[in-house]
Amino acid sequence: MKFPNLITLTTDFGLEDAYVGQIKGAIYRRNIHARIIDLTHAVEAHDIMTAAVTIRSSYHYFPKTCVHMVVVDPGVGSQRKIIALKADDHLFIAPDNGALTFILRDKKIQALHRVSNRSLFPDEVSATFHGRDIMAPVAAALADGLDITNVGPAIKDDECVQLDIQKTQLDEHGITGRVIHIDRFGNIQTSITSGNISIYQPSSFAGIFIRSNKINAISSTYSDTEEGELLAVIDSAGHLEIAMNRGNASEKIECKIGDPVTIVMDRE
Amino acid sequence: MKFPNLITLTTDFGLEDAYVGQIKGAIYRRNIHARIIDLTHAVEAHDIMTAAVTIRSSYHYFPKTCVHMVVVDPGVGSQRKIIALKADDHLFIAPDNGALTFILRDKKIQALHRVSNRSLFPDEVSATFHGRDIMAPVAAALADGLDITNVGPAIKDDECVQLDIQKTQLDEHGITGRVIHIDRFGNIQTSITSGNISIYQPSSFAGIFIRSNKINAISSTYSDTEEGELLAVIDSAGHLEIAMNRGNASEKIECKIGDPVTIVMDRE
Amino acid sequence: MKFPNLITLTTDFGLEDAYVGQIKGAIYRRNIHARIIDLTHAVEAHDIMTAAVTIRSSYHYFPKTCVHMVVVDPGVGSQRKIIALKADDHLFIAPDNGALTFILRDKKIQALHRVSNRSLFPDEVSATFHGRDIMAPVAAALADGLDITNVGPAIKDDECVQLDIQKTQLDEHGITGRVIHIDRFGNIQTSITSGNISIYQPSSFAGIFIRSNKINAISSTYSDTEEGELLAVIDSAGHLEIAMNRGNASEKIECKIGDPVTIVMDRE
Repeated sequence: MKFPNLITLTTDFGLEDAYVGQIKGAIYRRNIHARIIDLTHAVEAHDIMTAAVTIRSSYHYFPKTCVHMVVVDPGVGSQRKIIALKADDHLFIAPDNGALTFILRDKKIQALHRVSNRSLFPDEVSATFHGRDIMAPVAAALADGLDITNVGPAIKDDECVQLDIQKTQLDEHGITGRVIHIDRFGNIQTSITSGNISIYQPSSFAGIFIRSNKINAISSTYSDTEEGELLAVIDSAGHLEIAMNRGNASEKIECKIGDPVTIVMDRE
Repeated sequence: MKFPNLITLTTDFGLEDAYVGQIKGAIYRRNIHARIIDLTHAVEAHDIMTAAVTIRSSYHYFPKTCVHMVVVDPGVGSQRKIIALKADDHLFIAPDNGALTFILRDKKIQALHRVSNRSLFPDEVSATFHGRDIMAPVAAALADGLDITNVGPAIKDDECVQLDIQKTQLDEHGITGRVIHIDRFGNIQTSITSGNISIYQPSSFAGIFIRSNKINAISSTYSDTEEGELLAVIDSAGHLEIAMNRGNASEKIECKIGDPVTIVMDRE
Repeated sequence: MKFPNLITLTTDFGLEDAYVGQIKGAIYRRNIHARIIDLTHAVEAHDIMTAAVTIRSSYHYFPKTCVHMVVVDPGVGSQRKIIALKADDHLFIAPDNGALTFILRDKKIQALHRVSNRSLFPDEVSATFHGRDIMAPVAAALADGLDITNVGPAIKDDECVQLDIQKTQLDEHGITGRVIHIDRFGNIQTSITSGNISIYQPSSFAGIFIRSNKINAISSTYSDTEEGELLAVIDSAGHLEIAMNRGNASEKIECKIGDPVTIVMDRE
């Protein structure tokens, strides 16, 4: 099968209202054979950064040519454009507000188009819900095999909004990154990747520092440490994670998104 | 394809327990090819009005001949009947408690039947979960193409319970409606429709009043106003909505379901 | 159709993060035609008992040869094994930590294997997310018709961890069980089954006692009693349930998981 006809959804709509259900209805009206997977609808209202982190960390677990819709859209109804992106053999559709920052910045762009072909939209497009009235039918058509060149004119990546991401800093003293996500278990995801760490000699590793805590080593599993002890692992997305064996690391050390995390490399 | 074999679910079961999963299992046992879409399971326990507003606002985004199950059922196990309704080329199944009030009242009824054909039910029907044991297999059969006349005898709409909805009032001074829903963004949905407003001359519009606030105009998008400013738009379901550009209108003006909303038309 | 190609998920991952979405992606990469149903993702973090109760109460509502994945896995990355079980013509996959206790204890085991065939796993298996990297592809393969003997060597049930469940006690004075679950409506599920009760003469029934409350009879429906009155019914899973007609029984009597529930049988 060339096209898996899969569409993932990442939104800030929550599950209390029927908005997500309406998006799915709009997809099925265009493409009755689509399969739709919820990545999450619990992004905080208007939190574009979390949406950007979520889609970056998750898209590659899906089959190639899957369509990924990201609908965190505080500018709905304004002149912000909607973009369709092909990269890493996956398709993405989102408002042009930075939600696709990591894909645009880190992956080879195979195609990038402005979504403007009105023949793909229903007759009535509401001013307040482009996720349902524009992105859903276009995602449905792309999942069904529509070539991305049909959604609208090609654009350049420098015409797209990108979030101002504080880059992880690497120097001779070590690595300084940030807390980028805290999950429901209290596990703390950082911006430091296994690739960052691999640049240094393992023998130079002198410790990980987060708030007033020091962790002496990177473990291979949670179970390498005692219960209740703080530990560091490479998480399932390839990032340094601070966790606690059968405990909640985030509560224990009272950390929050944006806190600095440092790996000190002692070259002596 | 004549039958899309789609079933939507609107319930007050929440997602903490496995009740919704059990309903889906019961659907698949009868109809292995069904596709099931969650509209919402976050209706407050026993809140029939919200269920009624949800299905009214959402069903028409789905393909024709979709089956819509609404399971908010405080009277389960009592003598209340279960009804199957065809209207607007969609199918609905719900307890007879008012959950389908807006469809019964506002749409042309194509068929209305009492669900009583026990050959469609499993051998054991629990006294406390008719959503799983009666509505799910009947919805599954309807989605698979079973004619609605097979579920039980035809009944009249005046044999069905309808909620006592306070009608929007229109007179020479303007329109008085109510707050009917507040979403997770704090957007305030009112009972006033674009149809209500279209009866008046645009030039006679003098303002919208909600609690102690006045809004001077109906905007076409959220972005027409300054951040933090209260605004009015026609929402994606065709209703007047009070919102705030990148803010939470409901928190700001401290409104709740049932509060009056008035559009004053000044004929001078 | 021999294999319904259905997979149910019961996890403690919640819906805030994208973990559940990633599991679904991993399933689709191996088995593009799978249908995936969420039983619940709201199990408290690491609460194996609730996972065990959930799967026991729900699996039989699904078609035969459905695959049920239970991922509550505080020991991930340790030496705990992963098991695949066939019982009651259903398939189960879970960490070996007691999540399948009730199936192992109460059902005839048709096959029981250790999951260790690395050719079924992706090239990279993270140390912290075996639900996505091991259980998902194996469940996908089983749903697609892979014979369970291919997942790894057969093992004995006494090689598997089982939870220490306090058995319901039956003697000449009556039945003593426990509160095992409280749902979002405040309905109290107990460990006492209709089978336990059927051993006694109905005429000997003298009352149900929970905390300082006495209930005089087992009703056939919620509606048999006055609003706000405490009642007992046999719930949709065949267990004695304490509930309140249009009210919240659990809040009223302030009970919690593990509280004793006694049915007194008065033989005089």
